[in-house]
Amino acid sequence: MAVEIRFENDYSEGAHERVLERLAQTNMEQTPGYGEDAHCAHAAELIRRLVDAPGAYVQFLVGGTQTNMTVIAAALRPHEGVVAAQTGHIACHETGAVEATGHKVICLPSHDGKLDAAETEKFFEDYWSDASFEHMVKPKMIYVSQPTESGTLYSLKELTELRRVCDRFDAYLFLDGARLGYGMESPSNDVGYSDLSRLCHVFYIGGTKVGALFGEAVVITDPGIKNEFRYMIKQRGGMLAKGRLLGIQFEALLEDGLYMRISRRAVVLAGRIREALKQKGIPLWGSSDTNQVFAVFGSAEVKALREKGYVFSQWTPERDGKAVWRICTGWATPEENVNRLISDIRGL
Amino acid sequence: MAVEIRFENDYSEGAHERVLERLAQTNMEQTPGYGEDAHCAHAAELIRRLVDAPGAYVQFLVGGTQTNMTVIAAALRPHEGVVAAQTGHIACHETGAVEATGHKVICLPSHDGKLDAAETEKFFEDYWSDASFEHMVKPKMIYVSQPTESGTLYSLKELTELRRVCDRFDAYLFLDGARLGYGMESPSNDVGYSDLSRLCHVFYIGGTKVGALFGEAVVITDPGIKNEFRYMIKQRGGMLAKGRLLGIQFEALLEDGLYMRISRRAVVLAGRIREALKQKGIPLWGSSDTNQVFAVFGSAEVKALREKGYVFSQWTPERDGKAVWRICTGWATPEENVNRLISDIRGL
Amino acid sequence: MAVEIRFENDYSEGAHERVLERLAQTNMEQTPGYGEDAHCAHAAELIRRLVDAPGAYVQFLVGGTQTNMTVIAAALRPHEGVVAAQTGHIACHETGAVEATGHKVICLPSHDGKLDAAETEKFFEDYWSDASFEHMVKPKMIYVSQPTESGTLYSLKELTELRRVCDRFDAYLFLDGARLGYGMESPSNDVGYSDLSRLCHVFYIGGTKVGALFGEAVVITDPGIKNEFRYMIKQRGGMLAKGRLLGIQFEALLEDGLYMRISRRAVVLAGRIREALKQKGIPLWGSSDTNQVFAVFGSAEVKALREKGYVFSQWTPERDGKAVWRICTGWATPEENVNRLISDIRGL
Amino acid sequence: MAVEIRFENDYSEGAHERVLERLAQTNMEQTPGYGEDAHCAHAAELIRRLVDAPGAYVQFLVGGTQTNMTVIAAALRPHEGVVAAQTGHIACHETGAVEATGHKVICLPSHDGKLDAAETEKFFEDYWSDASFEHMVKPKMIYVSQPTESGTLYSLKELTELRRVCDRFDAYLFLDGARLGYGMESPSNDVGYSDLSRLCHVFYIGGTKVGALFGEAVVITDPGIKNEFRYMIKQRGGMLAKGRLLGIQFEALLEDGLYMRISRRAVVLAGRIREALKQKGIPLWGSSDTNQVFAVFGSAEVKALREKGYVFSQWTPERDGKAVWRICTGWATPEENVNRLISDIRGL
Repeated sequence: MAVEIRFENDYSEGAHERVLERLAQTNMEQTPGYGEDAHCAHAAELIRRLVDAPGAYVQFLVGGTQTNMTVIAAALRPHEGVVAAQTGHIACHETGAVEATGHKVICLPSHDGKLDAAETEKFFEDYWSDASFEHMVKPKMIYVSQPTESGTLYSLKELTELRRVCDRFDAYLFLDGARLGYGMESPSNDVGYSDLSRLCHVFYIGGTKVGALFGEAVVITDPGIKNEFRYMIKQRGGMLAKGRLLGIQFEALLEDGLYMRISRRAVVLAGRIREALKQKGIPLWGSSDTNQVFAVFGSAEVKALREKGYVFSQWTPERDGKAVWRICTGWATPEENVNRLISDIRGL
Repeated sequence: MAVEIRFENDYSEGAHERVLERLAQTNMEQTPGYGEDAHCAHAAELIRRLVDAPGAYVQFLVGGTQTNMTVIAAALRPHEGVVAAQTGHIACHETGAVEATGHKVICLPSHDGKLDAAETEKFFEDYWSDASFEHMVKPKMIYVSQPTESGTLYSLKELTELRRVCDRFDAYLFLDGARLGYGMESPSNDVGYSDLSRLCHVFYIGGTKVGALFGEAVVITDPGIKNEFRYMIKQRGGMLAKGRLLGIQFEALLEDGLYMRISRRAVVLAGRIREALKQKGIPLWGSSDTNQVFAVFGSAEVKALREKGYVFSQWTPERDGKAVWRICTGWATPEENVNRLISDIRGL
Repeated sequence: MAVEIRFENDYSEGAHERVLERLAQTNMEQTPGYGEDAHCAHAAELIRRLVDAPGAYVQFLVGGTQTNMTVIAAALRPHEGVVAAQTGHIACHETGAVEATGHKVICLPSHDGKLDAAETEKFFEDYWSDASFEHMVKPKMIYVSQPTESGTLYSLKELTELRRVCDRFDAYLFLDGARLGYGMESPSNDVGYSDLSRLCHVFYIGGTKVGALFGEAVVITDPGIKNEFRYMIKQRGGMLAKGRLLGIQFEALLEDGLYMRISRRAVVLAGRIREALKQKGIPLWGSSDTNQVFAVFGSAEVKALREKGYVFSQWTPERDGKAVWRICTGWATPEENVNRLISDIRGL
Repeated sequence: MAVEIRFENDYSEGAHERVLERLAQTNMEQTPGYGEDAHCAHAAELIRRLVDAPGAYVQFLVGGTQTNMTVIAAALRPHEGVVAAQTGHIACHETGAVEATGHKVICLPSHDGKLDAAETEKFFEDYWSDASFEHMVKPKMIYVSQPTESGTLYSLKELTELRRVCDRFDAYLFLDGARLGYGMESPSNDVGYSDLSRLCHVFYIGGTKVGALFGEAVVITDPGIKNEFRYMIKQRGGMLAKGRLLGIQFEALLEDGLYMRISRRAVVLAGRIREALKQKGIPLWGSSDTNQVFAVFGSAEVKALREKGYVFSQWTPERDGKAVWRICTGWATPEENVNRLISDIRGL
């Protein structure tokens, strides 16, 4: 068996060396617990500057599912639900974590991983014009992932449209940025960090998949969601005793743009793989230009690559001998692994 | 304004006179509370005989949403969900009552109100063959309504197929019989009461819409769901202090077939309305032959009928000047109202 | 075995004859469902007048546990809890219905069934002065029963004090009036209906135990709790399809003071039993002067009364051959049963 | 202001240097996510050997509250609750995390931080002999902390008694070992690791407070709780993408007894502080001989120590000029800080 070369996801390794170093340097500092330390305060300040929102409230949580369920449970009353694309992470890959807090995830069709603003608006219109609306879960939040689970991106225009729908129907816009860095550095991206804080009531900057050991930085601009939010973190099991670990990591990632640089690098590497696939005539699936590459492989191709040790994620069930596979780069992907993969793709 | 003639639903009136009489006759009896009285015991026995299941466990609840959420919360562990047609009552018209107990309602496409067994089986197959199954809600129950919210019926073959899927994947079959009487007495029905107890792990016989003031009789054949079920009723707010009211009503409905007779009468009346619409060339929607009639009316027709006092339920938003409207008969529908409606349909 | 004579509770019979008659008279009326009918509107208006609160919002639910959990879930955010005496119904006799909605019931000591205002205030003070308050459930509501589960009453002064504590700490005062009538007509009561609407953010007038088949009328004065409250009723399974049944019953009970008259009668009968016990030297437990009588019986006394057919509720476990038993009168208690019981007490 | 010297808790620093080194060494390994890697497998095997339970199921979670709520939600059906001392962490310091999963924490009196087995047995007996047991939350689990929040320990005899109560009433014994190491190395401890696996249905070995950055190792011996437990972790937001971080830390802590050594050292240091307090005549509170020291300080003493930079935790509100303060050592406490504190105590 060949040595495994993992392109299966962007969390196969530990943390960027700079992050680890910083954890080591600060290791014996004595700080207050639960995120009430100077590192968290400093990291929060870095984030407020990054997103150009001096009044934003920043908290740090350990992981994505935890963040999604905590934010949603904090924002909604019991009869309210969150609208998501049926491919949204909360809709399909969190073992019902949102439902376990009592809230329905209302699924709308996915268009290349995204909600369509017009379709979403129509859904809200139909809801409010139905005489039995009290018998249906009230849509109070729109959830989007940026980039989406399919590696695609909402444009500034699309996000602006969704925010308009929120404003019209008194709903929140919540953006899941578990892979935010890879989206921000994508060639096709036209959304800035300050757009996020302007358009979203709440969003997060993902660290787990972008250089940290773990950690998501939640940015809340809506006063109602901010209110008593730390209770919510504690209640959902998300308050880390040594909360400073989160602050320290985000300090390392954000104070000189490391987060952006390692994101860009991963996107560039993914672009090279995508190019190689195209040249080889292997179809791409969807329109991702972030760090996730989706290739339609035949079973012989899969077999050949597996024998060389590559580990990818199967994305769709096999139909007619073909399936979509995800090839994922990340902050840690060695360039030589990419070179080798490209060479092996050419040799298929 | 004309006097209102309601065909809007099957719960516009109180109870069948025989039910009311029985409540009056037993009114000053002193009985234990919470359904532990002789009337409930007797009604349960009548039901066990009706469904030919001597070992079945029978409990009485007040309403349908309450019954659905109590049964589902009793049957499932936290990470398990219930599969339903997207038109299923639990999926769309219970304000997220199931989600409020922590469980996801997993929606599959509706085919004339029904789940397709092959599609459902495929869903389970895909679930269990996905490597990330632990990250997705585990499907543990299939929910069907009989008749469905669209007035249609599962055939014996279809129910048998769904049960087979359940057996294959260790899931429960739960049948919502809020309008069961109207289904059982439909001309096209080929499912018997004993088939229900044989095929379903749990189902209920609806009283609220079929002659009772309120009340649903839950029949549980699965030992796991039976176990400590009364705690569940109490916890979900469904344990009526004067539980005997439920037993007494079902005694009146079931001891000499009143439930069946009043159901059949409503189905016959609905059939006459359906016939009149066909003769008039007004399209029917779906294939209901139970007590619910779905007519595609143009706005002029709606206006004309409204002016004569008729109250129907709008079933779909208006598109191109047309919408589906539901005309519903019930145990209480006066024959003269039906005659008049038929005459007015002819005169459109 | 003697014929059973039940003094076990106040819900052993059906409904007052006037309530039943009204249900029969209105039986074939066609009305909208879910409590949006004229009877409910009228009953709500009667209640607003009774409690002298023209702006109060009134909704009707079926039972007490359902009402408690719906109100509490509607009022609180996830991290908030409700303070109750450890003997409070929500704390011990609802199978965790409140916890099942996600909220902690915070128990304080019971003083004759009641919260002590000073002790409650101290609890809030300690909470807010604890540096770790975010790690503890935030007390946001005070729950009291009037009368309490021990048949005792809060005085106007005591309720006023509790409201002051609520105001000081931004909490709600919620009064469970499952047996409200029996409290209002008690000789020692000094609280008026208008005091309830003035002092409580939400309370209810119990029908189930006071002449109705079932039904509790919730009166909400707080704008936040009112808001979208009907969604909450539906979601918790409490929205009765034939909601008018609730309105009709409260019309019958309230339009000419029937509710008060039958309450007073039960309290008077209880007073006569209490007097007989005192004369016989049988100790009373607590200080109830409502419809619940608590007697400390030795096992020989219990045996003797049981042999004559009396059914009481055991209230405490037996210790040293003695236990507290509850003797409960109600709107339906036949005067002759009371006479006979008194005679049998004398003969012990 | 003097430099702060923190004795406030045992999570003020990062991780033991050996733990950090191991994280650095393994940092660029590519492993599967979510704890399905070789490090977690190895750490689990180390733990099975330590607790002498070859069939035990081991999973790793990030923190204590998360672990408590996940285990409890996994083990209980909706109507079941967990019995705890009123000072238990789940009862008072987790912002209702257990209630948020729908389960009641049933509080019994605390005796020096512990449940009394006889009192607990009496509680179960009373529960099951109460005719209304269905109206009360069913006690299905006993929760103990070892050491307790007051630093005290259950003896082997006490744990054995509690297990007997569990066996008699078909309940689970769950032991929260957030500070387990400090308890195991306490002079008065007579419980071995293999006793834990023999007596508890589920327990955990705390890492967060004993040398790890974070992490708790859950050991499940009961087949029912094991079953599909990983779904539960995911649903509650506790499944770490880079799960190996947990396995790696426990490998470092357990493979050569580091966990025990650093625990013992902290206990010895605490013992020295305790001795100094005694010599000075400052009363101790409770009977902790683990790493938590509880001193009854007057306000002048507190002021004097604060001025020298010491940070302790206030444990009780001040009454009559005195309050209990916690002085906590840990794996990271510098010996010189202890020496200095002892000297300053002497100088009070």
